[in-house]
Formats: sequence, C-alpha cells, structure tokens
Amino acid sequence: MTLLEQTIAAIRPADPAALAAARAHQDSLTKPRGALGALEEVAVRLAGAAAVNPPPMPFPAALAIFAADHGVHTQGVSPWPREVTAQMVGNFLAGGAVANAFAAQVGASVTVVDVGVAADLEPAPGLTVSKVAYGTADMSQGPAMTVEQAVAALEVGISVARDLVGRGARCLVTGDMGIANTTASAALICAFTGRDPDVVTGRGTGADDETLARKVAVVRRALRVNGLAGGLTEGSGGSEGLEGLEGPAGQGGLDASGGSDGWDGPGGPGGAGGASGEAPARSALETLAAVGGLEHAAIAGFVLGGAAARVPVILDGVIAGSAALVAAALAPGAVDHCVAGHRSAEPGHAAALDHLGLRPLVELEMRLGEGTGGLLAHPLVCAAVRVMHEVATFDSAGVTDKEA
Amino acid sequence: MTLLEQTIAAIRPADPAALAAARAHQDSLTKPRGALGALEEVAVRLAGAAAVNPPPMPFPAALAIFAADHGVHTQGVSPWPREVTAQMVGNFLAGGAVANAFAAQVGASVTVVDVGVAADLEPAPGLTVSKVAYGTADMSQGPAMTVEQAVAALEVGISVARDLVGRGARCLVTGDMGIANTTASAALICAFTGRDPDVVTGRGTGADDETLARKVAVVRRALRVNGLAGGLTEGSGGSEGLEGLEGPAGQGGLDASGGSDGWDGPGGPGGAGGASGEAPARSALETLAAVGGLEHAAIAGFVLGGAAARVPVILDGVIAGSAALVAAALAPGAVDHCVAGHRSAEPGHAAALDHLGLRPLVELEMRLGEGTGGLLAHPLVCAAVRVMHEVATFDSAGVTDKEA
Repeated sequence: MTLLEQTIAAIRPADPAALAAARAHQDSLTKPRGALGALEEVAVRLAGAAAVNPPPMPFPAALAIFAADHGVHTQGVSPWPREVTAQMVGNFLAGGAVANAFAAQVGASVTVVDVGVAADLEPAPGLTVSKVAYGTADMSQGPAMTVEQAVAALEVGISVARDLVGRGARCLVTGDMGIANTTASAALICAFTGRDPDVVTGRGTGADDETLARKVAVVRRALRVNGLAGGLTEGSGGSEGLEGLEGPAGQGGLDASGGSDGWDGPGGPGGAGGASGEAPARSALETLAAVGGLEHAAIAGFVLGGAAARVPVILDGVIAGSAALVAAALAPGAVDHCVAGHRSAEPGHAAALDHLGLRPLVELEMRLGEGTGGLLAHPLVCAAVRVMHEVATFDSAGVTDKEA
Repeated sequence: MTLLEQTIAAIRPADPAALAAARAHQDSLTKPRGALGALEEVAVRLAGAAAVNPPPMPFPAALAIFAADHGVHTQGVSPWPREVTAQMVGNFLAGGAVANAFAAQVGASVTVVDVGVAADLEPAPGLTVSKVAYGTADMSQGPAMTVEQAVAALEVGISVARDLVGRGARCLVTGDMGIANTTASAALICAFTGRDPDVVTGRGTGADDETLARKVAVVRRALRVNGLAGGLTEGSGGSEGLEGLEGPAGQGGLDASGGSDGWDGPGGPGGAGGASGEAPARSALETLAAVGGLEHAAIAGFVLGGAAARVPVILDGVIAGSAALVAAALAPGAVDHCVAGHRSAEPGHAAALDHLGLRPLVELEMRLGEGTGGLLAHPLVCAAVRVMHEVATFDSAGVTDKEA
C-alpha cells in the first residue's frame, strides 16, 4: 500500500464508548450541567477521537505552515504579488509573522514546509523543503496539478504530521501561506459542497470589488474547464459517530446550491454529476488535482496523518476548511479528529464548516491564514480537556447537586 | 476623600494619542490590514487604556472570585440550595472547580474573596475574608443592602484590585460565586438599561420554566418595591474615546425597552425617571444597594480599581456585565479599561454589553460564572497584544505590501 492508502486505512471514527463516558463524566462535574456550552462538546469530541476518557491533554501543539504558489495568480485574483509567498516564508523563519507571535503565546512549535513555492528557498532551521512543483498550473486553463502531484503533496502532509507526532506533538494546527490560495479554496468548496462561486468566493486578504468579480469568474471558469461544474459524486465526508458541535452534518452535499446562474447542486452520494448533466463524476483526488493547491493537498494529508495517529487537528481558516473537505472525502472518519479553530471572514469557510458539521470556536472576523485562527483556539481546546482531568465531581467535592 | 472617591478621581478614559498610534502600528505590520478582525481592536483598546503603544503585555492575570449570598434566594429563584455558595468556595480553595482548571491553563492566580457569604468560612490560603454582611436582604421586600454596605463592598473590590496589581498582576479577571446572583444581575440590568425583566432574565444555572417565570416576577417586584420601575437617571456609562469593538455604545440607556407590561424605558441622561412618572430618579449607588448583590458591588469596585491602576480588566459573564454597568455609571472612563471576555447564554448579558459598547471575544453559550469566560479570553487578549510587540513591519521584514 502507498503511504496515503496506509494512512486512510488506519483512520478510525470516534469511539462511541468513549463519547458516552465523556458525556457522563461532564455531567458529574461540579458545574451546572451544560454550563460550559460548546466547550463541553469539544472535550467529548476529543474523547471520542482518542477513544479514551478523559482524552489526553492536547499539549504541546505543533503548527505546520504549508507554503505554495498558484498558477491562477496570473489571472489577477489577488492584490498581492506572488513573491510575497516566499517573502512570508522568510518572515516565518525569522519569527516575525503573526503566526509566530500566536505560536509563542500558546507554546506551539512552528514548522514551515515548502510544498510548492515558486522559488528556490535557502535552507534554514524550521524549514522543511518538500517541493512537489514550483507552484500549480493555472486552474482556469486546465488542471492545477496532476493526480500524481496531488498525491505527492498529500503524502508530504502525512509525513509532516507523522514527524511532528513522533517528536511529541499532541495536537496539530494547520497553517498555510500561498498568495491566491483563497481562490483555489473557493473552487474546492464549490466542487465539494455544490455551492455557487458567487456565494463562497470572498475578498481573501483584501480584494477590491473589481478583483472580487474577476475572482468569482475565474473560479467559475476553473470549475467548467475542469468538468466540475456539476459537483462531485464521491462520498464527500461529514462527521460520523459524533453528536453535538454539529450543524447539519453531512448534509451540505445534498443542499440546493443557492446559486444564481446555472450552477447546479451536486449529485447525491453515488450519483452521476449535476442535474444539468454537463459534468461527469469526479473523484476527490481528481477534484483536488484540478482546482486545489499544493498546500491544500498537503493540509489534507496533514489532517489524515493526525487522524491516523489519533492526534487532534485544529483547523485554521478557509484554506484548511477546503482541505478538510478533501480529507473527509478520502476518509470520512478523519473529521472526528478535527476541531474547527475559528470561522474566518471568508464566506466559503462557513460553507465548508457546515458541510463538515463542525462548529468554530473563535469568531472574530479574522482573515489572515498562516494558522493564526487555529492557534488562537488551542488554549480553548486545552481548557476544555483540562476540565475533564482536574475538576472535582459533586461527590468528591461535597457540593450539593441541584434539585432534580 | 474616601477610597471610592479617590479611585473614581484617578480613572482616565482612553488616551487618544495612544489609540491613534496603535491603529497606525497595526497597519504597518506584516499582515493584510484588518486581517486580525476584532482582535486588532482589542490591542488598540488596551493601548488607549494604558496610554502607551504598544500596551504592556496583560500577563500575568489574576482572577478574583467574589462570593456572596442573596436574600432573594428565599423567593425560589434558583434550583440550587444556598449552601452551594459556601461549598463552592471550598471547592475553589481546594482547586477543584472549573475556574481553577481554566486559571491553571492561562497561568492566572486565583483569589477567593468572601464579601458576603451567609456562613462563617474557615481561614484558608487563597481566601480573603472581607465580609460586609451574611448575604443581602431580600430585594423583593426592600433594599438588598444599605448604601453604606454597597460602598463597603465596592471598596473591598477596589482593595483587592490594588492588592493584586501591587503583587504583579497585569490583567484582572472578574469572578463571582453566589447562588441566586443572576436574579440580582437581571434587576441591575433592567435598572441601568431600561429593559424589561422579561427580556433580560434568564435561566441562570438551570432554572426550569416555572422557576424562570417566578424569577421574572421577583425581578419585577424588586424593581417596583425599590422605586426603580422607571429606570435610572444618572449617567449610566458607555465607552468613551474608543472606536471599534463597539456596538451602539452608550445608547442602550436610550433604547425603548422592548418590554411588555408597563415597564417604562429609562429617563434620558439627567432626566427625571420613567415616562410613567411612577419612579423617582435614583443614583447608581442607591440602585446598586437596592437590587444588587455584595459580589456585584465588589466586582464594580474591582473594575474601578483596575481602571484607576490602568490595568485591563477582563469581564466574565452576566454578573460582571451588570456590575460593570454600576462601575460605568460611577466612572464612565472605567469602561475603556474593560474587555468583555465572553457573552454568556444569559440574555441580560447581551443587553449589558450593548449598553457598555463592548464586544465579547468568546461566544460559546457558557453560563457558569466563576470567571470562567473571562479566563478563557485571556490568551486571546495576550495574543492580540503580543502582535504589537513581536510582529515585523513590511519594511523591517522586506515583505512587499499589496498594490494600493
């Protein structure tokens, strides 16, 4: 078996016994039942993922920032020059970016992975060079990657996850850097959820109205050119075995698109493309290769690698959300090992989280990427789990429970 | 001057020059402008409060849990027996409560202050006994406290804040424990914002429908009995000098009540009671004494003490929100030194935050109190400030800024 196949085969969904034990445990603690709100379900979720209650403390965390460039940048979808990808890699390595400050705040290590930057980077401590290509091809003209490239990038992510877990990480945080990568994210989200580019495409790191309109058109063209305008047919994920913390889990793929001009909702599971019949069924890997980025592929692999190791993965923003759709399509149980760190200002992110059935912990209209939203959520996840380890029960503390 | 007067006299609103410097600083950092969303305004806010940019790191934090009992408990407003207040104090001191776990997570100290528990507590490390009374009187029959008691409890809070700052705290987090204290909070919020008891009274730590209905009626009766059914007329606060992170700052007191049966909106600033004329003008101190709790008074003092020392105060939930209304009425500039840690599930909390012009950082439907929501926000506040200290500028990092 390939590394990807091995990894997928190793992934188990949430353990029902551990979920039940964690829920019962929550209700025995010296607090009104349910008083920790959504945080209670985070702890329960991690117990299910770890198959043990209480779940291990998700500390220390390790952030991996996967950096890559995008051929679609030439279509004018971002106000930032492409060179900023490599420049920001330098900034991460020098410790000067927001991700570094946030990582320091939460005690997380920072690993930068060149999975596809369109420049040769100097070796440096903290930099892993696993370049699959010098950026993707322009998805608006044809596939962004070959399937082989997509698989190679997925396996980079798996390897990085394995390595970080081997070095002691007990929580993985996804990070990304790639000018134009919200464009690829929007295309992936359209393909996996059946939503319209109008609905999911956002301003990324600061597109003006004209750039946004161009970006929507480019996403639409990329989907058409790559035969994805009818949606995807393979199982596109959704959480299994976990209740709570969920929106309409696994139902996103069946939603009507809510779109505007001829974009069709996706086919049902196992169906045969969109209602218009204009698009053939496409596998998750082909879809990833067609409109994804190398960092999206690597992050999808990172999620799979964390899930296979039963180490929780905190997802950052829209890049991670779109990559998680890929991971969920390849191995639905992987979602049970994910926590949505935050919800970004990018509209496609909410669509991705809905589809995955994940509730974000932090909602502060951030739109930076790099893993910043995931890092910010890490202390909340730790706090949720710490409760299960340290808080007294009514019995042990001699506190009177409320009248039944 | 009394300690309370001295403290109020020492409070300065946000410094406009520091606010402006912080905003300019944010825009020079290697991130798209505004990409940290609401977190950027937290850092700006703290710069204004500290009158320096970047603001000092708000670390370490100190949590003070003010514990007290409530005479109104006899009206059946809570499903929990009154003894749980003292029992939970024991749990805090033994380290077994959620607040302890969260404090450990963020490196905060925990001080428990008996400002009005209806029992004699054993001396213990971490416990400050500053008991003003063995609980309040039943506010549905008359004033909960005398004004002298309210001032004494305010000064307890001021002293605790001073002491913690003197011992090195660079951020204060409010905490509370007091069975039935969401009832007093609802009454305070009605009095200070002019909203109706129906709108702001919630289930607290688990009231069923019958208890909730009784609780609403008790709040309404307490306001009537204490001559507060026409709202309050003294300046009831709102943030000054800070833009951003704000709802309709300072406007809550002018809203129509949205209520149902004869509850009037408040008088305007300096006005003369409600439109019905049934209630005379009441000062903030009289209002606090009439329907507040001893822990509400102490927390209001704690806020004033932090503000006077220019140390930021992270507000916890509805108890803190209602206490902050008192602090804001006494010293409007105090609000500039506050950060809303979270928004609890209690409906009155949103009303209080609206009135104060504060945006909560965490919104996870928590309803525990103890300071848990404030503690959870502390790493977010630290992350926001850390950005101002550690992140490189476009110039210094050699990163190309986006096309203008």
